[in-house]
Amino acid sequence: MTNTWEQVRNYVAGKWQDSLAVDRVLVWDPATGERLGNVPMSSSSDVGTAVQAAAKAAPMWRRVPVGERTNFLFKLRELLKQNFEDLSRTITIECGKTLAESQGEVQRAIENVEVACGTPALIQGYNSEDIAVGIDEIMIRQPVGVCAVIAPFNFPAMIPFWFLPYALACGNTVVLKPSERVPFTMQKVFGLIDTIGLPIGVVNLVNGGREAVDALLDHPHVRAVSFVGSSAVARYVYSRAAAAGKRVQCQGGAKNPVVILPDADLTMAGEIVADSAFGCAGQRCLAASFAIAVGEAAEPFTEVIQHRAESRITGYGLEQGVQMGPVITPESKARIETLVDRAVSDGAKLVVDGRNAAIPDYPKGTFVRPTVLANLPIPSDVARTEIFGPVLSINHVDTIDEAIEFVNSGEYGNMACLFTSDGSNARKFRYQVEVGNVGINVGVAAPMAYFPFSGARGSFFGDLHGQGRDAIEFFTQQKVAVERWPKTWSRKF
Amino acid sequence: MTNTWEQVRNYVAGKWQDSLAVDRVLVWDPATGERLGNVPMSSSSDVGTAVQAAAKAAPMWRRVPVGERTNFLFKLRELLKQNFEDLSRTITIECGKTLAESQGEVQRAIENVEVACGTPALIQGYNSEDIAVGIDEIMIRQPVGVCAVIAPFNFPAMIPFWFLPYALACGNTVVLKPSERVPFTMQKVFGLIDTIGLPIGVVNLVNGGREAVDALLDHPHVRAVSFVGSSAVARYVYSRAAAAGKRVQCQGGAKNPVVILPDADLTMAGEIVADSAFGCAGQRCLAASFAIAVGEAAEPFTEVIQHRAESRITGYGLEQGVQMGPVITPESKARIETLVDRAVSDGAKLVVDGRNAAIPDYPKGTFVRPTVLANLPIPSDVARTEIFGPVLSINHVDTIDEAIEFVNSGEYGNMACLFTSDGSNARKFRYQVEVGNVGINVGVAAPMAYFPFSGARGSFFGDLHGQGRDAIEFFTQQKVAVERWPKTWSRKF
Amino acid sequence: MTNTWEQVRNYVAGKWQDSLAVDRVLVWDPATGERLGNVPMSSSSDVGTAVQAAAKAAPMWRRVPVGERTNFLFKLRELLKQNFEDLSRTITIECGKTLAESQGEVQRAIENVEVACGTPALIQGYNSEDIAVGIDEIMIRQPVGVCAVIAPFNFPAMIPFWFLPYALACGNTVVLKPSERVPFTMQKVFGLIDTIGLPIGVVNLVNGGREAVDALLDHPHVRAVSFVGSSAVARYVYSRAAAAGKRVQCQGGAKNPVVILPDADLTMAGEIVADSAFGCAGQRCLAASFAIAVGEAAEPFTEVIQHRAESRITGYGLEQGVQMGPVITPESKARIETLVDRAVSDGAKLVVDGRNAAIPDYPKGTFVRPTVLANLPIPSDVARTEIFGPVLSINHVDTIDEAIEFVNSGEYGNMACLFTSDGSNARKFRYQVEVGNVGINVGVAAPMAYFPFSGARGSFFGDLHGQGRDAIEFFTQQKVAVERWPKTWSRKF
Amino acid sequence: MTNTWEQVRNYVAGKWQDSLAVDRVLVWDPATGERLGNVPMSSSSDVGTAVQAAAKAAPMWRRVPVGERTNFLFKLRELLKQNFEDLSRTITIECGKTLAESQGEVQRAIENVEVACGTPALIQGYNSEDIAVGIDEIMIRQPVGVCAVIAPFNFPAMIPFWFLPYALACGNTVVLKPSERVPFTMQKVFGLIDTIGLPIGVVNLVNGGREAVDALLDHPHVRAVSFVGSSAVARYVYSRAAAAGKRVQCQGGAKNPVVILPDADLTMAGEIVADSAFGCAGQRCLAASFAIAVGEAAEPFTEVIQHRAESRITGYGLEQGVQMGPVITPESKARIETLVDRAVSDGAKLVVDGRNAAIPDYPKGTFVRPTVLANLPIPSDVARTEIFGPVLSINHVDTIDEAIEFVNSGEYGNMACLFTSDGSNARKFRYQVEVGNVGINVGVAAPMAYFPFSGARGSFFGDLHGQGRDAIEFFTQQKVAVERWPKTWSRKF
Repeated sequence: MTNTWEQVRNYVAGKWQDSLAVDRVLVWDPATGERLGNVPMSSSSDVGTAVQAAAKAAPMWRRVPVGERTNFLFKLRELLKQNFEDLSRTITIECGKTLAESQGEVQRAIENVEVACGTPALIQGYNSEDIAVGIDEIMIRQPVGVCAVIAPFNFPAMIPFWFLPYALACGNTVVLKPSERVPFTMQKVFGLIDTIGLPIGVVNLVNGGREAVDALLDHPHVRAVSFVGSSAVARYVYSRAAAAGKRVQCQGGAKNPVVILPDADLTMAGEIVADSAFGCAGQRCLAASFAIAVGEAAEPFTEVIQHRAESRITGYGLEQGVQMGPVITPESKARIETLVDRAVSDGAKLVVDGRNAAIPDYPKGTFVRPTVLANLPIPSDVARTEIFGPVLSINHVDTIDEAIEFVNSGEYGNMACLFTSDGSNARKFRYQVEVGNVGINVGVAAPMAYFPFSGARGSFFGDLHGQGRDAIEFFTQQKVAVERWPKTWSRKF
Repeated sequence: MTNTWEQVRNYVAGKWQDSLAVDRVLVWDPATGERLGNVPMSSSSDVGTAVQAAAKAAPMWRRVPVGERTNFLFKLRELLKQNFEDLSRTITIECGKTLAESQGEVQRAIENVEVACGTPALIQGYNSEDIAVGIDEIMIRQPVGVCAVIAPFNFPAMIPFWFLPYALACGNTVVLKPSERVPFTMQKVFGLIDTIGLPIGVVNLVNGGREAVDALLDHPHVRAVSFVGSSAVARYVYSRAAAAGKRVQCQGGAKNPVVILPDADLTMAGEIVADSAFGCAGQRCLAASFAIAVGEAAEPFTEVIQHRAESRITGYGLEQGVQMGPVITPESKARIETLVDRAVSDGAKLVVDGRNAAIPDYPKGTFVRPTVLANLPIPSDVARTEIFGPVLSINHVDTIDEAIEFVNSGEYGNMACLFTSDGSNARKFRYQVEVGNVGINVGVAAPMAYFPFSGARGSFFGDLHGQGRDAIEFFTQQKVAVERWPKTWSRKF
Repeated sequence: MTNTWEQVRNYVAGKWQDSLAVDRVLVWDPATGERLGNVPMSSSSDVGTAVQAAAKAAPMWRRVPVGERTNFLFKLRELLKQNFEDLSRTITIECGKTLAESQGEVQRAIENVEVACGTPALIQGYNSEDIAVGIDEIMIRQPVGVCAVIAPFNFPAMIPFWFLPYALACGNTVVLKPSERVPFTMQKVFGLIDTIGLPIGVVNLVNGGREAVDALLDHPHVRAVSFVGSSAVARYVYSRAAAAGKRVQCQGGAKNPVVILPDADLTMAGEIVADSAFGCAGQRCLAASFAIAVGEAAEPFTEVIQHRAESRITGYGLEQGVQMGPVITPESKARIETLVDRAVSDGAKLVVDGRNAAIPDYPKGTFVRPTVLANLPIPSDVARTEIFGPVLSINHVDTIDEAIEFVNSGEYGNMACLFTSDGSNARKFRYQVEVGNVGINVGVAAPMAYFPFSGARGSFFGDLHGQGRDAIEFFTQQKVAVERWPKTWSRKF
Repeated sequence: MTNTWEQVRNYVAGKWQDSLAVDRVLVWDPATGERLGNVPMSSSSDVGTAVQAAAKAAPMWRRVPVGERTNFLFKLRELLKQNFEDLSRTITIECGKTLAESQGEVQRAIENVEVACGTPALIQGYNSEDIAVGIDEIMIRQPVGVCAVIAPFNFPAMIPFWFLPYALACGNTVVLKPSERVPFTMQKVFGLIDTIGLPIGVVNLVNGGREAVDALLDHPHVRAVSFVGSSAVARYVYSRAAAAGKRVQCQGGAKNPVVILPDADLTMAGEIVADSAFGCAGQRCLAASFAIAVGEAAEPFTEVIQHRAESRITGYGLEQGVQMGPVITPESKARIETLVDRAVSDGAKLVVDGRNAAIPDYPKGTFVRPTVLANLPIPSDVARTEIFGPVLSINHVDTIDEAIEFVNSGEYGNMACLFTSDGSNARKFRYQVEVGNVGINVGVAAPMAYFPFSGARGSFFGDLHGQGRDAIEFFTQQKVAVERWPKTWSRKF
């Protein structure tokens, strides 16, 4: 394998290859500020080469029986397990999250491989005998061809695996473009993939930025596009891929509300919400970012949150005991702090101020400490803006109905959580909130790999989601055959 | 009900309403040339009113239990059965096809209602207990909201029913725009719908043309778009609806090849292919339009086709014994005849010439008689152009492999059929042709209502199709809930 | 149709026929004591004739496409709707329950027909392409042949419909034996079936008792047996049908506990439990018969129950305002009252005594008024005996854990319900109770027709249940085909 | 691990344990006649201990999340792969089949583990929101408890795996009883299982004979029984387990017909049928045992078979080049040869005589060489008797219809195969033969692990089969919950 810690390479047609790109972008460890290496901004020509390799491999790969295709996934699972620690450390180093968070992420990636190992049962078509006398009909799921996966920086290992193992198991070939901010995790993963014996061209890795994305969206041989990123880019990708006639699924951003009722276990709720808001430094599309305390819940809940925010140990994710790492880039840190400034100037009370964090030994790290705002006036556009940092706003309303109205009034529809002990309230909330993922006494309602990773309104564009059965459906096209064998039947009737 | 044979009206918010449009377009009986009435080119304002009505009805309709929603469909089925003859005659009058063809179409519409009656079982979500100790996960299918259905002229009754009954049964509200060339069938159908007691605004009918389509594609309250039409417009609709962030499925055009092997029953094959090519005057997206005779099949097959083409009785679809009606408009007739001219000038042999048809008693009818071309040089762009008229080209190749290569070389991927007695050839063909719907010894491989109406490459844009389970999936969004009830469990473990 | 109110006949091979039986049993209206007619105790020879008719029809009926088979069910649904009142009155007259209860029952029967109308989508098999290179595999669901349905007295219309419509839609032929106590409802239903044009022998009705049952269980042409009745007979039927090598599903009896927590809405709980315990005079396999009040719930809950029991209007089910009818026979009344006697002598407190009921105008009716026992010592075997009458025992425990332990300690496992407002308790209960049907704040947890009618432990024998998908699976056998077409593939690889 | 080659032990409650049985039965290598060890005839007391261990483990194992349960299977799969050769050799040594055949068997076992690894997706229940306003319904699949698996001698590794991995993944605990003739394979497998860390009592192994079987069938804690063996014992097990109220599935014997049409590739057909008939020395429930040659196929087909039978190298399965091993016991050899004697005396022509085989170096081996009979008169009861040895009868008929009639006239319904090139004939055969597993141009129509291992008529008793989805259904019981949370909804409507 290439030395992943210096120069990031592409993996095309079964080989590590240098991009033709002139532009290379530096990659930094966000905690230490160390330079980790550089990543090529692959050109549309690089992308073309990768897509060609994938297109060339597609007809042969499609003919490999599904049970043999999943055998590669069983192997990959073993390798991911064996390299669990190395992969986890890599994520922490390039992405900043704590080692425990990275481990959780790798575990999620593995679980998607496990579910995709079950593709032989999930990919089956259905059929009917005698739709008319002597005529049968059968629906067969066949691969769509070359699939592009475009992944974001915040889960360098997990998010590619919402798609990659399913696409492969279904007989497609894949070109994956990871985020240029965190290219090393996939360098490692492809180092493992390189050893499992997949036919040449079945999986390909192209590093880069917007040019590479556009090239994937426009290339006529790419038949399907899976994207996760901000809502603005998700809309763009959805629109551009569709304009090119492709099937496409785009997961966007979020501003996730959590609602706390007075009948909840408020200590537990506070702890869970703090973990949701500050875990992964708030850089999760399922991070809680707006807590709505109902009635008397406000005060005690805020106290727990404040305590949790203040006491959360922020630092280098590889160090023992650290509970939160840095945000991804200096630009990101600046943007988050500016949004906090704006919130304060718009009238929010600053309960815990995490700006201007100075972490001993890591002066170059892009740290933002846990930040808690209260009573942010709703007209403030910060109330609707995805901050993507460890910032939690707490507002207060009088009834669950007001809380639900607030949940449904925003642009996004990724997640909403409720804390309560009451079954009636839970059912009402689940029924009425217009989001894809609902949590009841849960802070991060991440669907298991055998469920779709859902999303609604401004948080998802398309119909079929990543993970599980949805992924199988997205990565196959249905062929329907109507068959009659006349000789026999003309004799019989 | 309004007098449908004069002035076409919209049906909005439970009432027949006049469009605000100034433009009205005349509608003609294509066989008699009689004026049937006129249809409004509804404005975006008309569309807005209908979408608003649908949006207003959506929250309430969603709360009606699915078993009550399907009760409306059981009623509608009864009414469609009771009005079977009237609906069939209406189709023939405005669309031109024979009464038997119209009856077949209405039957297909009814079958879709029947399958949608089974929505309570098909809409169920799935769930897992203990994804982790004490935590459950559940996926619930909920309606998407307001759905737009945009239908073509060639199946005025059937195609709206690929979508409408499923959308309703899933708890959505609908705005349907039929083709402005055949508005009367839906006038009749909505006359029936008007009597079944659906809540106000649940279904809405807007007549019109491009302005109405664009208004539906752009309206922020429309959450899903289902379209059937030409590939060019399908691409446009797919792209524009996606640009507006909607889920969208678009069925396009076709140029359907049928392959005849020497081991087929050639008489049977000829009869079936003739019915496929000339039935509905060739105005079907599943019409055979290019026959590829392999080896010795060419001569005897062509003979049967020639005989069938010459002897097919063309005339007014309501008259007994008539086997083929007119094409839809004078423009269509002119276009078809020009394409035949071009084919001939490009080198095709004219086996049967159906141009300049004169049908006694129907001098104003836009008739084209069955036309058979042979040996059309493949470079001719007519070989790849959807003619959408009763024109069949017959070419000859030496092997099934060449035939499959031809099938896969075109732009479209709607249907391909094979005639053979040999199981090996059938399997090979089914496996290798890149089309959505495959027929084996079948001329019109139309999927039953409990199968997706598939389509591939240039014939379909999207992932989920119309009819059956696909329709249920398209017309629902998945909400995933992760639930923990901590009190109990903290006690137990 | 035969005059159903005098002499009950069999319906065999498309004709109403007199049984050869010498024995006939009188049928009485349990409220008025009027003689309604008599029912033949069909001999094994009668059964043989019916099974032969069914066996003869089976090969042809299997070849009728499923979409045509369900067309008969759509017709039957219309007829059941049109005869809704007549059927409901018939049930009340022969079975005793109130008209509203009868109407509810007919509605449930219709819902099963509706779900079975969706069989074309539910009966589909599944398939895989290329299980090895060039080899395909397909699973096809085919009918099992002749199916026997043996039904109890308490739901003369509904319970046959848990099976009958599915068996038919799946292509089986059926011999149905209703309870000899309530033969008239099926006389009416078969009067309707007689008009829908089913081929001769597809459905057959045989009236009788044990001899008829045994003949069905032993007959080699009967391939599947569906039974609902007491657990003792269910065990017998399960064992004997299995000894004859048949597939078999048997729903047995119950002693259904309901648990009331102090955090429930106790008034609502009391009303719902009273309806569950006294509705249908307690003659439901989902009737609540043992209320376990936890902690402080006992007193207020008992008050509501007492009030409800005392005020429930008992009488002739056809009369307006009547809330409860008689039990089915004098023997049943005697048995119930004896059990109440025994409970009292075993130490139970008699809160409301419904014995020795005298209903004005109906001196011959077999009425038992609502009866409430408290603190029945658990060692009393009445605590574990299915009373099948309007008798509710209320006991008191201190914790939900004790309540669950009680639920799981009995022989039966049909239903258990919980009343609570707390989500944790609901989840714990649902998770831990070992019963087939669970209700949360529901008194009669009857699954909808698109769910299995479940049951566990001593309440169900078999694996696949009645209703919905389970019924489809039970009434089909799976044929798996592995196919290779070698000519093609030896050429390709 | 215990020394498996001497004294077979039970594995109960996580420990290798000696049976209390006095009786021990010797186990021989059928090729060498060497004594391999002895196996205890465990008593009902031994069985009781194992069932108790399983029952004790059940409540805890059920609470382990399904994704953790399948992690044990992923581990087991790795171990089976790593011990592939050792397991294969063990099978050959105790069972006699060739090493290649043993390898094929272990591969099939592994494939079942792989499919069971996908249980998290396959075990999901289904659910409906708003079955009535504000009421939800959910079906949850829960384990059934203690499951017994009783396996035959002919596939010591594979057949236990039709059930075991699914039972475990579904949360059940298991007691497995292998055949007393081939106990060593499961000794090895349990040696591996012992290392994967399953909780104590989750899987248990009891060796023995009829007493152990009866004890399993009667034990009240055993909730489900899966059996594979002869039809006579299958009927017995089905009946006795049902009499004890358990769910039960029993796979029985077979007499599998293959039909050869003149249009088949007769050389290929002959080779495939010979492999089917003589592979595993004919000791497969899917072995071809009766070839029906139609029309002109008889002569050339018989020639190929004769050649194949005569040239098949019979010997010690561990030796390179050997194509067929011995039958399992001297009694089996004697029985087979007696049946051949009888066939000859009943009028069959002995085409190839495999009796009295003498294999150099293996004088004590229980070898029967490939034997081919022709024109066995159908009245001979040998024509309907399962021989379970390398004996193929070839008969001749004139039409496919006669052949199908023959297929359907026997007692068994396990498999039927057709050799043809014609699609019409294939469809007709697949449609009409009354067997569970159909092969088209395939000699051993063994369903993949993601399909049910089907069977019909005298070859299967029950409804749900082993393998795949069926196994998941068999090893779970459905709990249906109906839930209402009234506070919320009484407020809303």
